[in-house]
Amino acid sequence: MDFKDLAVQDFYPDDVSYCYGCGRLNDHGHHLRSYSEGDETVAHFIPEPYHTAIPGYVYGGLIASIIDCHGTGTAAIAAFKKENRSYDSMPPFRFVTAHLEVDYLKPTPLGVELELRGKVIEQKGKKVITEITVSANGEVTARGKVVAVQMPETMKK
Amino acid sequence: MDFKDLAVQDFYPDDVSYCYGCGRLNDHGHHLRSYSEGDETVAHFIPEPYHTAIPGYVYGGLIASIIDCHGTGTAAIAAFKKENRSYDSMPPFRFVTAHLEVDYLKPTPLGVELELRGKVIEQKGKKVITEITVSANGEVTARGKVVAVQMPETMKK
Repeated sequence: MDFKDLAVQDFYPDDVSYCYGCGRLNDHGHHLRSYSEGDETVAHFIPEPYHTAIPGYVYGGLIASIIDCHGTGTAAIAAFKKENRSYDSMPPFRFVTAHLEVDYLKPTPLGVELELRGKVIEQKGKKVITEITVSANGEVTARGKVVAVQMPETMKK
Repeated sequence: MDFKDLAVQDFYPDDVSYCYGCGRLNDHGHHLRSYSEGDETVAHFIPEPYHTAIPGYVYGGLIASIIDCHGTGTAAIAAFKKENRSYDSMPPFRFVTAHLEVDYLKPTPLGVELELRGKVIEQKGKKVITEITVSANGEVTARGKVVAVQMPETMKK
């Protein structure tokens, strides 16, 4: 299995694939897709024209949202890699966010594709800490940190 | 002018009232409204059924978004209060977010009204730091910190 061409979210089990940010089964959501690329992860996203902050710029809440989902996606990718397992092997990995930080370094322009890049900062037990950058036109406009933990079984309904 | 019954976002100038989170002129957005209440601020929000994280719980990106907008709203309220001015007096105050942090303390249930409460932690020059809690059914489920700065004039198009 070649990780490079597969998005980890496409292998989340059905019952945990309804996330508004990245769930493939959420009809209303953003459908963010996170891919492995060498030691990093990558995702691309084009905000809608109405995802406005100040006109011309992307709404900070959306930036926080895609950082969040790329962070948990990066955590899942790292967990599979650590066990040298493919995304379709059992048991699956599904992470949720315990802590999120975003530095808005400069306004993010609307109307262009954004690139998110993820790196693992720490991976220990059920916790993975990732650093995520958001770039527009090749320039980093926001930087985030996501502390992701494996979803507790008690969250499943 | 009685601050208590007025939302600060309803007094943002038209050209900066298109925020997806709280702009009254954004047809697609959340229209969050922040009110002063004693030394605190308050806002209420009911997520849509599709704002899902894991089914049954609110998507973390939405929680980050409403914390962000209630944080900048709380900053604007604090700025007006410091100058003892009403929201409709000139010049207006409009803050943007430099840094956002969210601790997801426990899963936030979907299907109930959320209450956001804001407090000013620091207010100095053009910067206001606020702490925001999100509660569901009377229980705090997330806690955020927003470092807000007055919007630079260069952000206006």
